[in-house]
Amino acid sequence: MVRLLAGREVVDSLEDDLTPRVASLAARGITPTLAVVRMGERPDDLSYERTAARRAAGLGIGVRSLALAADAPFDELARAIEAVNADASVHGCLMFRPLPPHIDEARACDLLLPAKDVDGITSLSLAGVFAGAPQGFPPATAQACLEVLDHYGVPVEGKHVVVVGRSLVIGRPVAMMLLGRNASVTLCHSKTEDLESLTRLADVVICATGRPRAFGAAYFRPGQTVLDVGINFDAQGALCGDVDFDAAGSVLGDAGSITPVPGGLGSVTTSVTMAHVVQAAEKIAEG
Amino acid sequence: MVRLLAGREVVDSLEDDLTPRVASLAARGITPTLAVVRMGERPDDLSYERTAARRAAGLGIGVRSLALAADAPFDELARAIEAVNADASVHGCLMFRPLPPHIDEARACDLLLPAKDVDGITSLSLAGVFAGAPQGFPPATAQACLEVLDHYGVPVEGKHVVVVGRSLVIGRPVAMMLLGRNASVTLCHSKTEDLESLTRLADVVICATGRPRAFGAAYFRPGQTVLDVGINFDAQGALCGDVDFDAAGSVLGDAGSITPVPGGLGSVTTSVTMAHVVQAAEKIAEG
Repeated sequence: MVRLLAGREVVDSLEDDLTPRVASLAARGITPTLAVVRMGERPDDLSYERTAARRAAGLGIGVRSLALAADAPFDELARAIEAVNADASVHGCLMFRPLPPHIDEARACDLLLPAKDVDGITSLSLAGVFAGAPQGFPPATAQACLEVLDHYGVPVEGKHVVVVGRSLVIGRPVAMMLLGRNASVTLCHSKTEDLESLTRLADVVICATGRPRAFGAAYFRPGQTVLDVGINFDAQGALCGDVDFDAAGSVLGDAGSITPVPGGLGSVTTSVTMAHVVQAAEKIAEG
Repeated sequence: MVRLLAGREVVDSLEDDLTPRVASLAARGITPTLAVVRMGERPDDLSYERTAARRAAGLGIGVRSLALAADAPFDELARAIEAVNADASVHGCLMFRPLPPHIDEARACDLLLPAKDVDGITSLSLAGVFAGAPQGFPPATAQACLEVLDHYGVPVEGKHVVVVGRSLVIGRPVAMMLLGRNASVTLCHSKTEDLESLTRLADVVICATGRPRAFGAAYFRPGQTVLDVGINFDAQGALCGDVDFDAAGSVLGDAGSITPVPGGLGSVTTSVTMAHVVQAAEKIAEG
């Protein structure tokens, strides 16, 4: 049977590392604190906000919610971000995207101080990821993929990783971060011809397209490692990934491994965000 | 016989476009001007500087040389870059790299105004390339690859491009720019296992490793397009590319194409730099 790369184990390991660090900050009177900037009331955002708040509370990390109306003008969003920048008691900021269409998203992202950019949305953070020379933090979902590979000891140096999906949140940054680990990396997307042949070549396949169960048996071969970044709902309203788990699992076989959805990368991403907030607080505390 | 993708044709086409634009700027009293910042007297740099000056003169573009001693301190380099930034009569800046080891290269690059960064060396320029949302200019060598593919009508949308070499000057930026053209892109490097199998898969291979004639017949198959970015000298002191031209050419065959060295991408890169200087001058003139 295919090996399950469960997120829970990775989360536990990350939290074991964070707990004493948060305690040490608390002893100095510092509560690592995350600001969550949200426009409107998208159910996905609200759900993630609740999860993040619960996880943060368990770790002793503070969360402050800055909720704006979906039709709030750019200036109001800008003032909220500038308030986050100016507030010394806030160490990291997560801004839900996509922002409403009337907002210039790239301009809004670049208002945030890179030091508080725990989800890698500013130009400087992205340039750091691209250059392999960290400035700020990498996007949390991309970092979560590396945490899973590291935790389960999946080798990447010299190996071929195929990433399907080219967003700035996951596809492009995870490709660059794996390149930094000396993987050979192929970036594929909706326009890729003969995608199945490319994914079957890979040692590691990362699926990040947001298309429910789009990756069936034909995309895989025995022995591969598959990271399923998708968090989708199928026609019946059930949570599912980009990968058809049963079909893929039967092809991957005993030597293969795969992250489940739910229970895979999603929860790790939340932990990585928390880790970035703690790291940001530590950096400021160290002056 | 393999088709030769000669740089001369691309240069002529780029210069045909630039000539009236420079004339139109001249009519408004503006001479598009490139500052060349150089530390030390590396023969490669001096040779490129002469070539650039000759090409610029032919086009009516000004060149100013800012030469510093190889052991000049960081502050002296910083003052030179700040002088470029402040000088309204300078529209673009090329800084030869690698800088000497005592200089923090990334910090030096980020002193340059992105608007004058005609070779894509600042964090903001690189973030723009990574995000597919131009800020400043892309690295000239990476842009030169696209100019050659465009000029000779080589399709890339949906096609598989394998880039060997992951520098910020060429490998990584050209990969992102081709991704922006909807190619599937694989980034390979010195740690890639079984590189020959990967390059043989590609529709287009871009060799940018700086290893003289390292890519022989085994790396290619009939019908591929090969861009040879290398500018190397062999043991006999002869200029050569990364590709063993004769061996590769015989495999690529009638349906294949390849850029020669010399006479390939090098001269196109110089023209792209000139095009960026003119574009920078036009942007400033338009206010």
